[in-house]
Amino acid sequence: MHVVVINTGTEILLGDVLNTHLTFIAQQIFPLGLRVNRQITVPDGNAIREALEQNLPSAEIIFLTGGLGPTTDDLTREITAEMLGLELASDPLLEAAITERLRTRGFPMTNRILRQAMVPQGAEVLPNDNGTAPGLYLPPREPAAGGSPYLFLLPGPPRELRPMFVHSVVPILHRIVRQEKPLEYHGYRMVGIGESLVEEAVGEQLLALPGIELGYCARIGEVDLRVIGPPDVVALADAIVSEKLAASIFSRSSENLEAVIVRQLSAREETLAVAESCTGGFLAHRITNVPGASKVFLAGYVTYANEAKVAMLGVPEDTITQFGAVSEEVARDMAEGARTRSGASFALATTGIAGPGGGGEKKPVGTAYIALAGGGETLVRHFFFPTDRETFKQLVSQHALNLLRTRLI
Amino acid sequence: MHVVVINTGTEILLGDVLNTHLTFIAQQIFPLGLRVNRQITVPDGNAIREALEQNLPSAEIIFLTGGLGPTTDDLTREITAEMLGLELASDPLLEAAITERLRTRGFPMTNRILRQAMVPQGAEVLPNDNGTAPGLYLPPREPAAGGSPYLFLLPGPPRELRPMFVHSVVPILHRIVRQEKPLEYHGYRMVGIGESLVEEAVGEQLLALPGIELGYCARIGEVDLRVIGPPDVVALADAIVSEKLAASIFSRSSENLEAVIVRQLSAREETLAVAESCTGGFLAHRITNVPGASKVFLAGYVTYANEAKVAMLGVPEDTITQFGAVSEEVARDMAEGARTRSGASFALATTGIAGPGGGGEKKPVGTAYIALAGGGETLVRHFFFPTDRETFKQLVSQHALNLLRTRLI
Repeated sequence: MHVVVINTGTEILLGDVLNTHLTFIAQQIFPLGLRVNRQITVPDGNAIREALEQNLPSAEIIFLTGGLGPTTDDLTREITAEMLGLELASDPLLEAAITERLRTRGFPMTNRILRQAMVPQGAEVLPNDNGTAPGLYLPPREPAAGGSPYLFLLPGPPRELRPMFVHSVVPILHRIVRQEKPLEYHGYRMVGIGESLVEEAVGEQLLALPGIELGYCARIGEVDLRVIGPPDVVALADAIVSEKLAASIFSRSSENLEAVIVRQLSAREETLAVAESCTGGFLAHRITNVPGASKVFLAGYVTYANEAKVAMLGVPEDTITQFGAVSEEVARDMAEGARTRSGASFALATTGIAGPGGGGEKKPVGTAYIALAGGGETLVRHFFFPTDRETFKQLVSQHALNLLRTRLI
Repeated sequence: MHVVVINTGTEILLGDVLNTHLTFIAQQIFPLGLRVNRQITVPDGNAIREALEQNLPSAEIIFLTGGLGPTTDDLTREITAEMLGLELASDPLLEAAITERLRTRGFPMTNRILRQAMVPQGAEVLPNDNGTAPGLYLPPREPAAGGSPYLFLLPGPPRELRPMFVHSVVPILHRIVRQEKPLEYHGYRMVGIGESLVEEAVGEQLLALPGIELGYCARIGEVDLRVIGPPDVVALADAIVSEKLAASIFSRSSENLEAVIVRQLSAREETLAVAESCTGGFLAHRITNVPGASKVFLAGYVTYANEAKVAMLGVPEDTITQFGAVSEEVARDMAEGARTRSGASFALATTGIAGPGGGGEKKPVGTAYIALAGGGETLVRHFFFPTDRETFKQLVSQHALNLLRTRLI
């Protein structure tokens, strides 16, 4: 089925806000055998009219986000109803719900807010537990009646759209979709290998398989390989990929590297602490994003100042003076100090120069040392990631987690 | 000028990767008086053909990202050249640069990789310091020659596109653009107030101003107000907004809340430590993302386990037993312990229940306490954010930073 995602939002086109709707919607619909064929972003206000004119004739399913709120920018409901020739009427249950929602929050009611209770004739209301404006589902009309696709009008804010999509939209999609031959999707997430090398290793063999679709995605500190096809062919592909790339693959699901680590430590009933300088809390943040982290993660020591390395981790002042804060010796002491003081089974440490300042001739911006204490001899690795601060933190934390992964194999 | 952004990438449409190009490009071109009118995402491969067919006639500037790499998915260069009737020839300087790049990295050369040295007739090469495939600028052709817009072909990976855009694309745009009446953009970033209330406070007055464009964007823990118009009118708008909303505004630039805090502490030559439980390192990470943080940020204590609160911060075990880890008393002890032990001027502490598990009747998931020690009496605030873990961390860290902001005013 031809699926189109239309996102409204001048703030998106101005670059103020990142558009996450496509990512979310695409992941939600794939298991139903649906794929997004096209995504378009248009400004608030009247521009939605042109986007609908171009897509109403050809699309079979349209997900349209934004423009349902109370402000003068919000015209989706009105324009869609007008273009489809549908009357708008206020839904008394919605009016009551909105009135109550505002009352419990102590907000005053206004006419503009009440517009959000208007529903186009024939539309199904999709409840919004996290905001005021409900979503709307407009079922398709026969060509004789002018013809229209399955049309979903959804709220702009992601925290309102996402639960609504899962609870109300997906069940409707299940009714719509008649899957004849479901495809399978296998993803392989790899660390420590480049995209070209992955293609060299398996590309030709995989493309020779009938009906296979292959894709590569290079991310920061990761390469993802995607294989889509009929289940029996994907099984063959899986054997090829496993044989050639097993050591680099850290996940074959949506599990990210930190989730893999937390799961493995949890199964082994072991614990982890981290000591961070250049990653500044990001490594602890990644780990604590994983549900269940509290079972394995004890503590993070963000020893940003050198004095903190001494006071919190027991790194000898002389070691810092002699070798510098960014050194193999200090990384080792940080990891061992964190492990001793927290009592954790393992401890990871990071120290480096994230930039833009702080670099020197012998240790330029991008220099990083990662250490792992516990489970054997303390390991220290040196890396060079001359890049922006955000990418640097992602790369250093990724390689720190990978160092632990190799010890847990 | 009619500006269109076309992003290629099946991984984007599958939801594997978030598209950040629009945000970046939009922010880059706005100071030049350029605004993105439309953004489209299409799959890898041949779909780019249809997107170009639809937009080559009407667009004046097209930014086309992705599809320049070495894999079989990458067809942008070839399809664009074909559609514009341009020959492709291998550029000897590029060939040499690519060969050298691979040699220093120890990667083998292949024909597929060498395709990236092909350049359409008349195109200007945009050097890529962070990847192999260069960008390409195709200047417009007169209608007599078939007509075409200013066309920029750019790499898919953001860390390759962004420096190239800044160093090579923006200078070209400066040559293209003849700005007659530059518009001004004022943004107001606010914390602790809802979108509807902002509109109630200033919406009517602002819309009465001639030539003003107004926009609202609700983010997690923040509401942004955007005002665009001629400089003199925007100055009037600024006076209105300042009068009505000054207390809620934390930034009138792209500075986020943590950057504001770091700047203010730096100016006062004061320092900060943080003690985190439920935010798990995210607060330290936000602060250390700010260039210059090392001047003010001393340490972060990520005391995830209760034992760590005792060992690292000196929180009395009895206090945890009596009041629970998520309590006003423990938040206070965490903040004061962090301040004492780090020697910082200020310390922020967070403790709460991020979910999905861990909640109870008296303290449901979403309960949070934030404490601030230093600069006066220790302050403790109670919040209730029943939401997903990621949003919870963002909200708690945002309100923690805001608590410090109110003390620094």
